Amino acid sequence: MPDDRSAAVDLETSLAGAPAGDKADLRLWLRLLSCANLIEAEIRRRLRDRFSTTLPRFDLMAQLDREPDGLTLGEISRRMMVSNGNVTALAASLLAPGLVERRAHATDRRAQFLCLTPHGRLVFGQQSAAHEKWIAELFAGVSPRDHADLYRLLAAVKAAIRQALQDESA
Amino acid sequence: MPDDRSAAVDLETSLAGAPAGDKADLRLWLRLLSCANLIEAEIRRRLRDRFSTTLPRFDLMAQLDREPDGLTLGEISRRMMVSNGNVTALAASLLAPGLVERRAHATDRRAQFLCLTPHGRLVFGQQSAAHEKWIAELFAGVSPRDHADLYRLLAAVKAAIRQALQDESA
Repeated sequence: MPDDRSAAVDLETSLAGAPAGDKADLRLWLRLLSCANLIEAEIRRRLRDRFSTTLPRFDLMAQLDREPDGLTLGEISRRMMVSNGNVTALAASLLAPGLVERRAHATDRRAQFLCLTPHGRLVFGQQSAAHEKWIAELFAGVSPRDHADLYRLLAAVKAAIRQALQDESA
Repeated sequence: MPDDRSAAVDLETSLAGAPAGDKADLRLWLRLLSCANLIEAEIRRRLRDRFSTTLPRFDLMAQLDREPDGLTLGEISRRMMVSNGNVTALAASLLAPGLVERRAHATDRRAQFLCLTPHGRLVFGQQSAAHEKWIAELFAGVSPRDHADLYRLLAAVKAAIRQALQDESA
């Protein structure tokens, strides 16, 4: 039901009644969030339908894919911004089907590292290639010029947000 | 720990090694997602620190705030794209402190509508005003011209994504 899905994430509707110049920042935020939510919802749906997996599992495997030496649960938790408890459950769901394995650290025997198994690396390679293709499909209607402009503008936005967060914590 | 927070959501790092022209759509997506995640994480943090509430609770109250006649749990579930079970738990957490109340439908006695209580409306008014101010703070460093360009470009992106979703389901 693509119409329902689109309607559900059309956050901008909430500001439909507000005067045009008003709440400009809120409008920009809701439009940005709408785009992110539309894409993320579609990625979740396709991961589920085509690979019987979830976005958190895909994200965890992506973290491990770029760390051949593996990562501790604590480090994964920090990078994915999820609680230790959630990471443990997530890791268990990848350990059980043999996509991920535990490995002891070479020098610190107490530290447990998680790594992709060879099978996990193969499976993630397929998921990752599909994911990249899906993103390309979803952005296919964006002109090269808009694409380039947007990429540049989002860098400025990201820097501005970082600055605001630094000012806030100073 | 703002540095940790920023590092944790800097998804673009994963592509740092890829050639510049390569994976352009994936880069754009990760940059868009980074911006959305940075803002959302900060909003979650401030809602928790300053109002002892959560983003899902804030979002549910926002849905009810613009529907004076209330919404059924099913409709809330659809709009927020969360399961019926999660909406029930979420609603319970707002019913208990008297922010939300159940109301029977005027003609269909079986249908239960959730509404903000007068107290809930007051509390949401404060949260909503703070939320709008936070968003303005986070975007403060974006120039008016970039702001306008971005707003326009994101509309094009949203339309392109919608089109891609329609093509996919056709």
